[in-house]
Amino acid sequence: MNLIDNLNWRYATKKYTNKIVPQEKVDYILNAARLAPSSSGLQPFQILVITNKELQEKILPITFNQNIITVASHVLVFASWEDYSLDKIESVFAHTVAERGMPEGAMDAYKTRLWDMYEPRGTEWRANHAARQAYISLGIAIAAAAEQKVDATPMEGFIPSQLDELLSLKEKGLKSQVILTLGYRDENDWLLKMKKVRTPKEAFITEMN
Amino acid sequence: MNLIDNLNWRYATKKYTNKIVPQEKVDYILNAARLAPSSSGLQPFQILVITNKELQEKILPITFNQNIITVASHVLVFASWEDYSLDKIESVFAHTVAERGMPEGAMDAYKTRLWDMYEPRGTEWRANHAARQAYISLGIAIAAAAEQKVDATPMEGFIPSQLDELLSLKEKGLKSQVILTLGYRDENDWLLKMKKVRTPKEAFITEMN
Repeated sequence: MNLIDNLNWRYATKKYTNKIVPQEKVDYILNAARLAPSSSGLQPFQILVITNKELQEKILPITFNQNIITVASHVLVFASWEDYSLDKIESVFAHTVAERGMPEGAMDAYKTRLWDMYEPRGTEWRANHAARQAYISLGIAIAAAAEQKVDATPMEGFIPSQLDELLSLKEKGLKSQVILTLGYRDENDWLLKMKKVRTPKEAFITEMN
Repeated sequence: MNLIDNLNWRYATKKYTNKIVPQEKVDYILNAARLAPSSSGLQPFQILVITNKELQEKILPITFNQNIITVASHVLVFASWEDYSLDKIESVFAHTVAERGMPEGAMDAYKTRLWDMYEPRGTEWRANHAARQAYISLGIAIAAAAEQKVDATPMEGFIPSQLDELLSLKEKGLKSQVILTLGYRDENDWLLKMKKVRTPKEAFITEMN
């Protein structure tokens, strides 16, 4: 099956069985998410992997009681930097320079140029920019899950400030942006029988030749 | 090759050859992008496909003269709704209801609930929310291109307001968010020889068991 087949196979599962997703499949999905590209390679986000049922129960009210949160085998929380800073950029670039065996400081000019561009745009712009990088990774994680025949449901319907508090994200300089639950579809899921509907090609694509 | 192999094969190509990407491969990538999930299935964005060299030349200064814009075989512009509205939601849901053969008005209650949630959050929040949906699709388009062995470079370094004006996006209620160029890597690309560097797994993933 190719990616298109996998995307047609997947859907936003609303009812999971109790089956646990094997660790190697979870690792595969997380590895794909980690390989996602990001602006200037900064990867300004992390993924929290929750498999603790007590914690899932605590998340339940934060998601307006969507009970797939507690039934899901794994709950992935994509949490992005609440801000960029020159120090953070420096730290990522130092790692890149070391991994590539470049001379120390080889990315200093780029680092300065980048921060000169980010700095005047303000905290809110930067927080949004970081969040968007997490969404690229989310898209790739969804593709990876479908390839592994693992059901994955993205969820934005939750109260970020409450989830941040529950998971102590503020202390880490992170903000929760989006959840991806993993599990296996229950064949009785009402949505499974529904046709997948997307914007028709003609309305979605504009060709400018 | 599986998705992980494809993600390791890909990189943000900085130098393309003049080779044109065949239409069937472009269609495949666009179809994958169209199959990406979005919040409540609203798909609040479109993709503009540019293959007109004169237009690409006009985009060049808007991208701070990154010349891959003119050499690229295809330039995809992901442009999201500048706002949601009850009418737009209604229009998408009417299509869904028709495609699924549901009774007319079957999604009316959901539509109202959704708008009651979106409305108080303000235009800026809604514009950002729409943009994020485009980024999920971007992630999946990147995965699709890699599967097709087409090089794809995402670009955020451009002036959105100027691109919006050039492409008459405001008239369509759209805002350009991110570009994805398609083409084939030139073997002399300086970045091709560089090791792919990502945040180490231990720093990227936090397990909460």
